[in-house]
Amino acid sequence: MTDEMRTIIRESAARITETCGGEELFHARGCALPERAEVVDITEKLRALLFPGFFGDVSTARSEYAAGYALTGVCARLRVQLEAAFCYAGNGEIDVEEKAESVLKVFISSLPQVQKLLLCDVEAAFDGDPAAKSRTGVVFSYPGLHAITVYRLAHILYKEEVPFIPRIMTEYAHSLTSIDINAGAEIGRYFFIDHGTGVVIGETAVIGDFVKLYQGVTLGALSTRLGQKLAGVKRHPTLGNRVTVYSGASVLGGETVIGDDCVIGGNAFVTSSVPPHTRVSMKSPELTFREMNRTVWEKA
Amino acid sequence: MTDEMRTIIRESAARITETCGGEELFHARGCALPERAEVVDITEKLRALLFPGFFGDVSTARSEYAAGYALTGVCARLRVQLEAAFCYAGNGEIDVEEKAESVLKVFISSLPQVQKLLLCDVEAAFDGDPAAKSRTGVVFSYPGLHAITVYRLAHILYKEEVPFIPRIMTEYAHSLTSIDINAGAEIGRYFFIDHGTGVVIGETAVIGDFVKLYQGVTLGALSTRLGQKLAGVKRHPTLGNRVTVYSGASVLGGETVIGDDCVIGGNAFVTSSVPPHTRVSMKSPELTFREMNRTVWEKA
Amino acid sequence: MTDEMRTIIRESAARITETCGGEELFHARGCALPERAEVVDITEKLRALLFPGFFGDVSTARSEYAAGYALTGVCARLRVQLEAAFCYAGNGEIDVEEKAESVLKVFISSLPQVQKLLLCDVEAAFDGDPAAKSRTGVVFSYPGLHAITVYRLAHILYKEEVPFIPRIMTEYAHSLTSIDINAGAEIGRYFFIDHGTGVVIGETAVIGDFVKLYQGVTLGALSTRLGQKLAGVKRHPTLGNRVTVYSGASVLGGETVIGDDCVIGGNAFVTSSVPPHTRVSMKSPELTFREMNRTVWEKA
Amino acid sequence: MTDEMRTIIRESAARITETCGGEELFHARGCALPERAEVVDITEKLRALLFPGFFGDVSTARSEYAAGYALTGVCARLRVQLEAAFCYAGNGEIDVEEKAESVLKVFISSLPQVQKLLLCDVEAAFDGDPAAKSRTGVVFSYPGLHAITVYRLAHILYKEEVPFIPRIMTEYAHSLTSIDINAGAEIGRYFFIDHGTGVVIGETAVIGDFVKLYQGVTLGALSTRLGQKLAGVKRHPTLGNRVTVYSGASVLGGETVIGDDCVIGGNAFVTSSVPPHTRVSMKSPELTFREMNRTVWEKA
Amino acid sequence: MTDEMRTIIRESAARITETCGGEELFHARGCALPERAEVVDITEKLRALLFPGFFGDVSTARSEYAAGYALTGVCARLRVQLEAAFCYAGNGEIDVEEKAESVLKVFISSLPQVQKLLLCDVEAAFDGDPAAKSRTGVVFSYPGLHAITVYRLAHILYKEEVPFIPRIMTEYAHSLTSIDINAGAEIGRYFFIDHGTGVVIGETAVIGDFVKLYQGVTLGALSTRLGQKLAGVKRHPTLGNRVTVYSGASVLGGETVIGDDCVIGGNAFVTSSVPPHTRVSMKSPELTFREMNRTVWEKA
Amino acid sequence: MTDEMRTIIRESAARITETCGGEELFHARGCALPERAEVVDITEKLRALLFPGFFGDVSTARSEYAAGYALTGVCARLRVQLEAAFCYAGNGEIDVEEKAESVLKVFISSLPQVQKLLLCDVEAAFDGDPAAKSRTGVVFSYPGLHAITVYRLAHILYKEEVPFIPRIMTEYAHSLTSIDINAGAEIGRYFFIDHGTGVVIGETAVIGDFVKLYQGVTLGALSTRLGQKLAGVKRHPTLGNRVTVYSGASVLGGETVIGDDCVIGGNAFVTSSVPPHTRVSMKSPELTFREMNRTVWEKA
Repeated sequence: MTDEMRTIIRESAARITETCGGEELFHARGCALPERAEVVDITEKLRALLFPGFFGDVSTARSEYAAGYALTGVCARLRVQLEAAFCYAGNGEIDVEEKAESVLKVFISSLPQVQKLLLCDVEAAFDGDPAAKSRTGVVFSYPGLHAITVYRLAHILYKEEVPFIPRIMTEYAHSLTSIDINAGAEIGRYFFIDHGTGVVIGETAVIGDFVKLYQGVTLGALSTRLGQKLAGVKRHPTLGNRVTVYSGASVLGGETVIGDDCVIGGNAFVTSSVPPHTRVSMKSPELTFREMNRTVWEKA
Repeated sequence: MTDEMRTIIRESAARITETCGGEELFHARGCALPERAEVVDITEKLRALLFPGFFGDVSTARSEYAAGYALTGVCARLRVQLEAAFCYAGNGEIDVEEKAESVLKVFISSLPQVQKLLLCDVEAAFDGDPAAKSRTGVVFSYPGLHAITVYRLAHILYKEEVPFIPRIMTEYAHSLTSIDINAGAEIGRYFFIDHGTGVVIGETAVIGDFVKLYQGVTLGALSTRLGQKLAGVKRHPTLGNRVTVYSGASVLGGETVIGDDCVIGGNAFVTSSVPPHTRVSMKSPELTFREMNRTVWEKA
Repeated sequence: MTDEMRTIIRESAARITETCGGEELFHARGCALPERAEVVDITEKLRALLFPGFFGDVSTARSEYAAGYALTGVCARLRVQLEAAFCYAGNGEIDVEEKAESVLKVFISSLPQVQKLLLCDVEAAFDGDPAAKSRTGVVFSYPGLHAITVYRLAHILYKEEVPFIPRIMTEYAHSLTSIDINAGAEIGRYFFIDHGTGVVIGETAVIGDFVKLYQGVTLGALSTRLGQKLAGVKRHPTLGNRVTVYSGASVLGGETVIGDDCVIGGNAFVTSSVPPHTRVSMKSPELTFREMNRTVWEKA
Repeated sequence: MTDEMRTIIRESAARITETCGGEELFHARGCALPERAEVVDITEKLRALLFPGFFGDVSTARSEYAAGYALTGVCARLRVQLEAAFCYAGNGEIDVEEKAESVLKVFISSLPQVQKLLLCDVEAAFDGDPAAKSRTGVVFSYPGLHAITVYRLAHILYKEEVPFIPRIMTEYAHSLTSIDINAGAEIGRYFFIDHGTGVVIGETAVIGDFVKLYQGVTLGALSTRLGQKLAGVKRHPTLGNRVTVYSGASVLGGETVIGDDCVIGGNAFVTSSVPPHTRVSMKSPELTFREMNRTVWEKA
Repeated sequence: MTDEMRTIIRESAARITETCGGEELFHARGCALPERAEVVDITEKLRALLFPGFFGDVSTARSEYAAGYALTGVCARLRVQLEAAFCYAGNGEIDVEEKAESVLKVFISSLPQVQKLLLCDVEAAFDGDPAAKSRTGVVFSYPGLHAITVYRLAHILYKEEVPFIPRIMTEYAHSLTSIDINAGAEIGRYFFIDHGTGVVIGETAVIGDFVKLYQGVTLGALSTRLGQKLAGVKRHPTLGNRVTVYSGASVLGGETVIGDDCVIGGNAFVTSSVPPHTRVSMKSPELTFREMNRTVWEKA
Repeated sequence: MTDEMRTIIRESAARITETCGGEELFHARGCALPERAEVVDITEKLRALLFPGFFGDVSTARSEYAAGYALTGVCARLRVQLEAAFCYAGNGEIDVEEKAESVLKVFISSLPQVQKLLLCDVEAAFDGDPAAKSRTGVVFSYPGLHAITVYRLAHILYKEEVPFIPRIMTEYAHSLTSIDINAGAEIGRYFFIDHGTGVVIGETAVIGDFVKLYQGVTLGALSTRLGQKLAGVKRHPTLGNRVTVYSGASVLGGETVIGDDCVIGGNAFVTSSVPPHTRVSMKSPELTFREMNRTVWEKA
């Protein structure tokens, strides 16, 4: 390495270190941050626990000890992350051990119910997709189910007001599936997302039972221009039971309610409530047709 | 660990184990499930084989032994997965060893032809994208090519009626690229997908040669409300040769045929057939313009 | 393994090897290709350096030596990749060592400024998203920030005309976040992308300060039919300062300029310039409402 | 790579392949060989099971599920290795599944007793070594205990006439500890080996309770000149209860019996039986003393 | 898995769990045990720090930040292990954080001196072994140097009365090199062990400067029959400066002093003191010679 | 971290860095050092190549491409290490590329002959050890064979005067097996080392065919007091054909020749030549026997 390069490194390092020292963001507050990689791994261990034999170590997946063993490990490892999250966010003002213990009790008690819900979600996917060959195939491969699994786990922690971790979990699923379900959303039973890429479900959305969404559906806010002033305000829509929303449709606004048994057509842009039993479509997709010069394709 | 926590774990474990014992989904049927991680790794080994030097171990990639060595390994490892898939899905009623052997013969024989097709796809990407600096760069980075590579491999297995594995493969590519090509689709030569996020190509879609798709394009079904009753029915469109579909457009329906040399404009929503040599556009995208209060941007 | 299978492998291997021998694409030119996995790992090491404590090894992240140590490692490893890229692309006609040294100087000197920009981007995300609980949470989980981080790093290399590597970096981020920012784009300060799935920002796009994009936004070209003939031509739009573009909107064309303080509404399709302080919306989203048969939902 | 090197590789590869094809040793017999790395890993999993909390994953080591979970995994993985071993060695003439099942039953049933024995061995080490600070330290670090642990596990398989695997296990321990205990030896309770390097305990050795050996002790054969003709013959000594053998001593021969409560002194070379309650020493170690030139140490 | 096997596993698991519950050894005492794998990795990181460029990550080994960065990491990770060790051994009666902090200060302050001593040890090895081609080769490969490096690190911790960890470190080196140096021994400068297999240096041994040992040398106790009653008593010998002990020799007893400049011949068994400047040899190694039957070698 | 600790780290780091800057040993000479871990991995790849199916990846071990593929990889990776070794040792005065190429040609051409020799060594082990159940078991587990395999590979490089690497290889084997064979020794066919712990074979030893050594045998120098002045001098013994040396025996001196068909008894200490067909034994191992107090064994 040349002396010049050594000097450049020294100067850049000094400036970066200085910024890190002065920025509030990088203050450790006497405790560790949660670790994203660990949170992700715990999440996958939970998925393997809830669908034994499909993911992770096959040889022990179906033993009578598997669930207890997995829960013990999750409990120990999640505790560390919970304590870090409460410590860091709480600025030293909460009893992190007690809080972590209390969250863990709720979380672990809830897992059997989460498993039951997910089995319904598998059923919904199999029933709803003609390309599904079997329930087994749904569990193995469907990104929608993967995203919902992670959401259902993260949602428990969100309700317990755990900082950072629910969002790390759902953004992990978002990264894998391109389905962005905020851990705060309320979602009912038999939920199915087909293909899923680009689906966005906002923090205050409410979704009933037997709902089906396609790729590119946004359940979003009308505007976020007010930024943090909107924190806590309901700004995403409510969907009733048995609603289907086709690909590319947007349903926006916290006061927008889609009634039971509605169907929202592809690309529809809905910003106000819809009564039950209504099919909403974009008005005759208007297209122009023009004959083209026949020599278009020369090389590419 | 407190005794209370121990009790909670014990109860949750018992309930999860009970569910697993009673659910049809978790019955092992005397054989292993395929392993997703192994299928994914085999897929990547095949990609490295078809584009030697670009992925995986560089030091041996171009030796005269590399292809034979890689094929031997793929053959051994894919065989295990094929046997597991046929065993599990077949419920013990097929000769899994014979079936796996037969599929492997077809699969391995087809690989040279797949490589030839992929070299055409590289050419299509380079010709079609002004941002492409070189064919080499296309192979390294283009998600469209990655998705097509995996699709072309999975499609061979789909045609051989292999359970689970083709879908695991294409959903792996979907996860990486946000491009969802069902392994059942029929796709011609010189295929290019630019950017690609959100592209969905349904199971019964048929695509000609020299076709180009942009991000957010759906080649989908009009409705899947009938669910499993539609299994096997052609419900996705047919595209001719030299068709271009711009970003966000949807072409829906199993009887929809887009003729040769058509161009489908951005965001167009097409649900019926289009004759050859036609440019289809959304009618003058109607927009409203409103002057805004000049004090919009205070802080955020 | 049967003799027949052995023969099939031998023949497939021979044909693949023959193709690899004859194809220009696979010629090594006496030097190695860059390695994608290494480029990706260097990118993540840089992210960990710029946000110390959030990613990677926690125990040393905040030491006064961390930045210098990380920069030394990045310098050594990136040099190898730069030399490979220049060697391979340059066909032996450039002094790769000198070129790599010169790029490294610029790159490492620029990192403190990149860090400063990213801290502004964090601020923009926190201010702009009511669901953001803290700046810390933004750094941990927001895919928009991840994509912008990688873009800002890749952009330095793009300006230095490094082959392959900038695109490998941005496509890595694309794969994780479904946000596709070409390394060539020019992007100002306080940039925020919310949700992000499906965002496409083309190579010649120019973006001002305090700009906010939502999922599914395309800043694209009007047509790429001319392929490589368009290389180097400005074909993507220019956005002024304080512009917001809502989800699903497309802004297309190299001569399209969106003035300062504009708001582009959801799903809007904009192909010509817009004066400052203008809100552009799709004209009253036209929808049809039809009451549905009340027996729609039988099983699925 | 030069053409000359390519030719050299081709010729060496051909000759090696030819040898492998013609050598009996490399015939696969239609079944896999056991895998050394897998056997080693199973062995370490068993050690972690028997000393929970000391080795392997700490977070779950003491849960009530740990033992059951570990046994399930060992059972599944060891079964594969047992079947491979019986298949390969048996030349297709035994029912490998039945044999593996039967061995597994014995093996898993014996583990609680092995654990009890090992706890006695820990006690013997603590009592016998003034440098031992605690029983905990003995479990963590003492190579003698490590070698005995592996021996006690391998011995069960040896008695069940499992091919290959017992030796792979004890040679693994030999590699780590330099203590070479043949899996065939019979060893009593409260066994302690101090330091241990160079200890050799032959296949037909018999050792009583409360025996203590030091480094470099050989319990060996008088001659092995007859090679395979000696297979099965008792050719290593028998040690009674409460025998101590100091460092470097050799006790040789199948008919050599060391009675209860004997002490064999350092470097003693014993080839015939010794009655109980006897201390055997090398006769006054004869040494010569010579004054040295005082300028010996010039540089090193 | 058969029901019978399931029952066997259940019973074995229950018995093992019961033993673990009842045995003092397995009581966790409300704190973690140190982790052997972590201690070993810290040890290797320290070796890489002291010999930069020889072990571990080469690309950063010689940067000006390497030492500070490595020390920061070691400090954080060793602290965790120290706290665990003091907590576990101390039974809750010591302030583990204060104790760990105090040990770390001594340890890290001592490292530069350890490095200086090791450079002398390299010199001693190079000077003392005609087979040594270079000092570089000594650092890379000599097991004696490896064992001494680990000993010199462990010795600092031993003097600080750290439980478990010094022994874990030296037994790790013992496992790799078959050289067993107790962390309690006192060893001077320019120490060389050639070949090294089987060397044992007891806890209370004292060794001067410029000492050279060969393989199989024991510096041991005369008897350890009294077990724990001897804890703390000097029971291993003292060697003066410039002493050489040839292979297989034993020097035993806490009151045995080998004077400066002595040479102890191969296989000598020394149990009492030797004045300075003395060469001690086994008296004329008495051998018998017998002509053999010339047909000894038939097959093997 | 406290400020005091930060200061301690800063000072220790500074002193270590200063030493590294000033010490000749740590000068990089403008090129990398060889990497021990890489050399070790190449060595194991070669062992897997020579005994296909026994070590490493089983699924491809016996394909017709395995040898060529493995040799290509070894060639590429060993070349890097050879260039580093010649560069570092040569101080820039040799053409390292040419030298590496020339060594590689010899090395790769020699491998088939090495394999043939090793198959003879397997035969020797099976014939010579009554505890050997099969040739397969010998390959899997015998440390003697492991050490000889590595020696035979390293010896080719030693003869080509490669710096560092042969010793790194044999010390790797020494670490695993406690058998220390210097790469410079000349060893004939059908060589067997039983148990092996503590065997030392010096750099200038010469060993005929059909030789058998037991644990603890030293073929060493009489004195190394002259250190580097002895470099290159024959200082280790010569053994004829069909010689057996029993455990613990030492044969010392460069002029010592053990004739064909000799047997050296256990613990014999031989420093001068022995004519052919001679059995050499320690004269009647003189022992004393003393009856012991019968109350010796109270607790331990």
